[in-house]
Amino acid sequence: MTTDAKILAALRANPSGVSGAHLAEELTISRAAIWARMDELRQAGYNIEAGPHFGYRLVSAPDALHADDLLARLHGQREHPRQPEHNPQKHPTANIATHHKIGRDIRVFEETTSTNDVIEKLARDGVPEGVVVFAESQTKGRGRLGRKWVSPTHKGLWFSILLRPELSPQETTQLTAASATALRRAIQYVTGLAVVIKWPNDLLIGGKKVVGILTEMSAEVDRVRHVILGIGVDVNQEVEDFPPEIRNIATSLKIESGQAISRAELATTILRELDADYARIYSGKFSELADEWETGCATIGQKVSVQMGSRLIRGCAEALDDDGALLVRTEHGHLERVIGGDVTLEK
Amino acid sequence: MTTDAKILAALRANPSGVSGAHLAEELTISRAAIWARMDELRQAGYNIEAGPHFGYRLVSAPDALHADDLLARLHGQREHPRQPEHNPQKHPTANIATHHKIGRDIRVFEETTSTNDVIEKLARDGVPEGVVVFAESQTKGRGRLGRKWVSPTHKGLWFSILLRPELSPQETTQLTAASATALRRAIQYVTGLAVVIKWPNDLLIGGKKVVGILTEMSAEVDRVRHVILGIGVDVNQEVEDFPPEIRNIATSLKIESGQAISRAELATTILRELDADYARIYSGKFSELADEWETGCATIGQKVSVQMGSRLIRGCAEALDDDGALLVRTEHGHLERVIGGDVTLEK
Repeated sequence: MTTDAKILAALRANPSGVSGAHLAEELTISRAAIWARMDELRQAGYNIEAGPHFGYRLVSAPDALHADDLLARLHGQREHPRQPEHNPQKHPTANIATHHKIGRDIRVFEETTSTNDVIEKLARDGVPEGVVVFAESQTKGRGRLGRKWVSPTHKGLWFSILLRPELSPQETTQLTAASATALRRAIQYVTGLAVVIKWPNDLLIGGKKVVGILTEMSAEVDRVRHVILGIGVDVNQEVEDFPPEIRNIATSLKIESGQAISRAELATTILRELDADYARIYSGKFSELADEWETGCATIGQKVSVQMGSRLIRGCAEALDDDGALLVRTEHGHLERVIGGDVTLEK
Repeated sequence: MTTDAKILAALRANPSGVSGAHLAEELTISRAAIWARMDELRQAGYNIEAGPHFGYRLVSAPDALHADDLLARLHGQREHPRQPEHNPQKHPTANIATHHKIGRDIRVFEETTSTNDVIEKLARDGVPEGVVVFAESQTKGRGRLGRKWVSPTHKGLWFSILLRPELSPQETTQLTAASATALRRAIQYVTGLAVVIKWPNDLLIGGKKVVGILTEMSAEVDRVRHVILGIGVDVNQEVEDFPPEIRNIATSLKIESGQAISRAELATTILRELDADYARIYSGKFSELADEWETGCATIGQKVSVQMGSRLIRGCAEALDDDGALLVRTEHGHLERVIGGDVTLEK
């Protein structure tokens, strides 16, 4: 962690205040240097009080993504998981060991073409797995099947994660499942909203899409080189922030919950949950994760139509196959295995 | 085709000669322009005779790869398939329809890092499938599992092909099979040598490796964006061209046949055969191709050891599974499915 990240971590761990002398000793820098860092954090929008009795105290943080702050929060959540304000639920991964891979390195861009593009370059440069790139806005955000993803500045979380899993290309559906379950737990935990999975890994609230995930990989036929998880979460948009043509199919956490959500808190909760599910895959507990995926998947039992290339399949989504494929019983009684394509829930 | 490619195609189609007047009319350029092109081709090493009775006649071509010449040969082979000098076998794909995708665009570099790198850039720029990049030498040629591939200048064929197949990542083993069968047919046809396949797609002559294929892909979980076939063929190396440590496991077509092989003829035969097998996949005839793959695969029935990550499997390779996996019966009687890893044939 950087010095700023350590200072923010100490402030968050000590809500009643921490003394400058103590901080200076911990970080082995002078008290004047601590004072200078606090001043810079204030200029970045952090409201930090100082007083002779309590030392330094964090009153509020700006709703901006700040790499050091995200690192500090992630570290703090791991050390001291605590209840969020809006939700009395149990800490979702209290019993899941994390392996602290995802989020070891966090980078925030004010604007980029697409965070997947940035990670792609880092991957080619040999950067280790776990690096996360956030952007406050994307000029060429993209979704599945080459579609455009609208990502208005400061309103959502647009980020990508580099993974280098020891999986075959066939096994990457495990990451599809992990991303769906982890995002669902994190959003339910921070907002208290009921979230369902639309197969394979879209997340819906009240039937409208709130999260999209694009999983890209570079591989040999039998070996994955790297996987890029690209994630878009609609957080604090108002209805009018969405283009009119998607207002009946897309929503934000703010619209659904009626209150603004701390993007930084949500971001680090998501990273912690993703890390926990990535650890579950590595420790041979994928079946546990698959059960959670199927439980959260609202597509099961529904009438669906699936566009696979030029073919349209209509029927009832019966279950998930062992490898994550969707099993659809057609009108003619055949059971079709769907591994991809565009699934529409029919009314 | 370029003007040079058209001229070379006409010269090859008319071994007894073609008149300058005829060429000028066909190509709608002046006879003086034809004369100038002939002079440039001579300077590139083509021995072209001219005479009042026969016009222009191609006596010999240099052993260099020349994009226009490769296009001319490929076009000529498609129009007029003919027997090569050294081999009385039937034309291997006489009965297979090609779809003329592979080799629509051919580029030759004197030197590059790796032809896969060049194709990767073309793929990102949106170049259509079928483009082929040859290099006379590679500074960073690579093989499977991140290994180095030695590619001495002008001695072999080092090339890569861009494909954009409508396949899922799971189905790309079809391309592994296609590359093995097409290369085997092409080399047997041009050299008359007996070639066997070492699963999944190395080619061996007399137990030594003569072809390596690296298949890389960029994909979403359910959809391939592009595949790069990287192919290395050891053609005209002498024994001393190989590093001492691989002389007992690697060989060249020249060493095995006792004569120099025309790299241009071999290259275009390979492209034609690959195109034919790619067409077989598209026309729903993969099972036919899979049978040919299994027939040519010397690994079946052999004792093998397979290194899969940190796991070593020993046993007898019994058969290929429907999806191309190698089925290995272990010493303990279990049947293991091998989809990748490093296979060694045991004595």
